[in-house]
Amino acid sequence: METHPAPATGTRMASEIAEQPTAARRTLDHLVPEQPRLRDLARGRRRVLLVARGSSDNAAIYGRYLLEVVAGVPAALAAPSVATHYRARLDLSDTVVVSVSQSGATTEIVETQQWARACGAATVGVTNVAGSPLAEAADVALVTQAGPEVAVPATKTYLTQMVALAVLADALSDGSALAADLARVPDAVAGLLEVDVSAAASELAAADRVVVSGRGLLLGTALETALKMEETCLRPVRGYSYADLRHGPISVVSEGLLAVLVGAAHGPLAEPMVDLVRDLQGRGARVLGLGGTPSFTDVCDLHLPGPDLRETVEPIASIVPAQLMIEQMARRMGLDPDNPRGLNKVTQTDVTSSTTHERSPR
Amino acid sequence: METHPAPATGTRMASEIAEQPTAARRTLDHLVPEQPRLRDLARGRRRVLLVARGSSDNAAIYGRYLLEVVAGVPAALAAPSVATHYRARLDLSDTVVVSVSQSGATTEIVETQQWARACGAATVGVTNVAGSPLAEAADVALVTQAGPEVAVPATKTYLTQMVALAVLADALSDGSALAADLARVPDAVAGLLEVDVSAAASELAAADRVVVSGRGLLLGTALETALKMEETCLRPVRGYSYADLRHGPISVVSEGLLAVLVGAAHGPLAEPMVDLVRDLQGRGARVLGLGGTPSFTDVCDLHLPGPDLRETVEPIASIVPAQLMIEQMARRMGLDPDNPRGLNKVTQTDVTSSTTHERSPR
Repeated sequence: METHPAPATGTRMASEIAEQPTAARRTLDHLVPEQPRLRDLARGRRRVLLVARGSSDNAAIYGRYLLEVVAGVPAALAAPSVATHYRARLDLSDTVVVSVSQSGATTEIVETQQWARACGAATVGVTNVAGSPLAEAADVALVTQAGPEVAVPATKTYLTQMVALAVLADALSDGSALAADLARVPDAVAGLLEVDVSAAASELAAADRVVVSGRGLLLGTALETALKMEETCLRPVRGYSYADLRHGPISVVSEGLLAVLVGAAHGPLAEPMVDLVRDLQGRGARVLGLGGTPSFTDVCDLHLPGPDLRETVEPIASIVPAQLMIEQMARRMGLDPDNPRGLNKVTQTDVTSSTTHERSPR
Repeated sequence: METHPAPATGTRMASEIAEQPTAARRTLDHLVPEQPRLRDLARGRRRVLLVARGSSDNAAIYGRYLLEVVAGVPAALAAPSVATHYRARLDLSDTVVVSVSQSGATTEIVETQQWARACGAATVGVTNVAGSPLAEAADVALVTQAGPEVAVPATKTYLTQMVALAVLADALSDGSALAADLARVPDAVAGLLEVDVSAAASELAAADRVVVSGRGLLLGTALETALKMEETCLRPVRGYSYADLRHGPISVVSEGLLAVLVGAAHGPLAEPMVDLVRDLQGRGARVLGLGGTPSFTDVCDLHLPGPDLRETVEPIASIVPAQLMIEQMARRMGLDPDNPRGLNKVTQTDVTSSTTHERSPR
């Protein structure tokens, strides 16, 4: 496959990736003071239901694990069509519904939030746009401080959504389970901006077939890496949970496949990833590792470092080398990472709204 | 791509597909009398959490929509690693946990059921094997009556899992919302066994890239069609929800792609599928439709009929033409559908158990 040299001048996507340490710090400073309101809102409610699509959905998957693992609160992802099309009447009086949308204007998400309120839920809106329909209608709006995002692939808005969800999980935990670790995130993000991704980008740009896998708290990072590669490089890339890959689809792995595996540096899921690397290599795949333990790093064919953070906040930073790699991969493929074909900044599931062709409203 | 003539002799997979009307009827007869016990178990509990992997997970996705849409009970899919690896302590005293496993012996699912009970949940085990660890430990065991399944790709066990989940949703609904429709399912399944799938199988066997999509109650059918094609034909096939496909990945659709779309014959999601067909065709894809409305049938390039059932029970039967097509596709590709490479009948997520190499224990 033909590859192009990566031009020296930066794209908007590259600038926005580089703004993430500041965006994370501003978002933490802005949202931590909301924790008492979040605690009040959740009092007497037993569970959290997350509503999101696309990149926001990947942030929500991280939030789901974090809420269950750190805060001990049962959490799940909503099926929006249950609200928007089937108009089911559920009793959500025991539930906090957290809707996540960069623009705060995706009709499906806004409508699902309205439905949730009508079903008795308390509502939290996570969005980058103050004054957006999602923020205006929420009981508590967590407005991320990423600043305007111009490149179509979400980077700093995705990262700050994860910060917001971690602030929420911290608020709902007994003490402040995540506070000290969260404070270390902006520097960890900054430390990853200089990672040399050229070998990884070059191999990916030339790869015939690519899959991405991760597990648990880092599953969202794996799914976001796959989605971002599809959106930015216009190449089909499948994201699998570790378990889903093992349950069947691993039988399609063969010579010529490049598997990107997102490893945890710490925690109970760190070591099993080493076995998966060996299994994939045994079937003929090459493995590009992101993060993980030293023994994981050792067995991968190619490797990019992750942050040295506890697993609970690691995903907020571990997406950064993947973003850098994808931005460079797109340029090597002769594509403009800022404007992939066929995408709008505000995505609508059903084409019924005047906002369909709107770009970032902020 | 080289294709082979489909041999006239049947495979085990073909026989097991053909046994499904009987399997569905036996399962209904066996499980409907359990409805009072299910109602008693759920009394005072507010939600359902489903635990499953692989094909069982696709049945659980159907169950989730059905529980919310028909029974008005909030339902969600569990993340098993929260139980098995993070060992989170959640208060599940308001929850019925439904674990779905053909063998009833998958360690991860059995352990998650134990964890759920320790967290206060009432437990229902859906399995094809009476006396299996899952059945033995459950408060109520719903033992599907598929009989022994020998082919590695699950067919009749998958279909009867959906029957069991529909029996559960019917029990938890106010009246008996599904009873009359469920009674029509075995005949509808029988009516689909003679569908001519040869053109579809031949086109799929020769296709370069395949994706599958569906939505709402029929999302599970789409995901199961994709998974079954991967497992049986050793070909990467991506299953997307309608919304996930629209949110980004549609940008990778181009000339040479074959999109399999599972449509609903009735219900609020039936008509939007027509737009998706046109959108995919506009990007150069060919569309193979399964089921759906007359206007959906008209716009597809190729089409297989679905059952004439209400959307709530339609997914139980709509998998049948897909199974037939995949069985024939595998044979045209020179593969043995009964024994795809690299799969065991009992799948384990982590290789720690002596049952890993066990085949169907029944």
